Amino acid sequence: MSPERRIILGLDPGLALLGYGVVATEGHSVTHVEHGCLTTPAGSAVPERLQVLYEGLSAIRRRLAITDVAMESLFYSRNVSTAISVGQARGVAMVATVDGSTRFGEYTPNEVKHVVSGFGGARKRQVQEMVALILGLATLPTPDDAADALAIAICHAQRAELSAVLAQARGA
Amino acid sequence: MSPERRIILGLDPGLALLGYGVVATEGHSVTHVEHGCLTTPAGSAVPERLQVLYEGLSAIRRRLAITDVAMESLFYSRNVSTAISVGQARGVAMVATVDGSTRFGEYTPNEVKHVVSGFGGARKRQVQEMVALILGLATLPTPDDAADALAIAICHAQRAELSAVLAQARGA
Repeated sequence: MSPERRIILGLDPGLALLGYGVVATEGHSVTHVEHGCLTTPAGSAVPERLQVLYEGLSAIRRRLAITDVAMESLFYSRNVSTAISVGQARGVAMVATVDGSTRFGEYTPNEVKHVVSGFGGARKRQVQEMVALILGLATLPTPDDAADALAIAICHAQRAELSAVLAQARGA
Repeated sequence: MSPERRIILGLDPGLALLGYGVVATEGHSVTHVEHGCLTTPAGSAVPERLQVLYEGLSAIRRRLAITDVAMESLFYSRNVSTAISVGQARGVAMVATVDGSTRFGEYTPNEVKHVVSGFGGARKRQVQEMVALILGLATLPTPDDAADALAIAICHAQRAELSAVLAQARGA
């Protein structure tokens, strides 16, 4: 059975800045596709800014034929009003990118660090260096939100490969 | 100048249950259009449930030619994880119903109670009775989330009328 090709979109959602990172996997290989940020105008009303995120993500999803979407699970926050704002961007990111044919994965921040860098307590810079190493990038990915999104996508890729191996082992 | 006809969608968003209430205004008159709830299956993944809300609201918006959308402003919550969950539903509700041609209004819970029932400390039941009275409904609107959504829509209608009167007074 030949390994399935998947295009994984990692997301780090926020209202002002939404980081995204896309990787492709096929068996053991993980390759970089692209990464970047969507930004929304600070002076605009919230529904307008969310609409910018929705349209930007819908365009990325169509253009890159995304098969998988991954985010960090979010059960903590500095405060309730930040939580509502991040929640709004997160909900919009989900409906813009995930439908019945998309695989969706959520991972804790520690899980992402652990899978990418080998230990859950890794510093941000160490995670970025490992992301660059894994994807063969000449420089560290920037900005931070896009680097985080790539790390989340890599985490999903490795978890998905593990699931596939386990499923095959069970079937054998 | 003849008064503009507006179709106002009041929303009380949640992941499991989203209450909506629609009223029409023209000058001083406020009339009931419809109210109800969208529910999402508890066993499904969050992105799937948000997709149900997105599609349900998009359908209501098209069917009723919504011109205005109103929600309660949300700066408090029982806890952070509730805030994230409500935030997600709220963000989805915004992108599904508000675009560049829609007026959007946010009101505090006290403001809604005050506008609808005459005082900010009104109990839920009193607000529901006033909603039924204002809209000429034979029975109290149910469930609570839909009644709340109607109250939010009425609040927006009265604020919008006030804005129009003030604008006309300034222009005169």
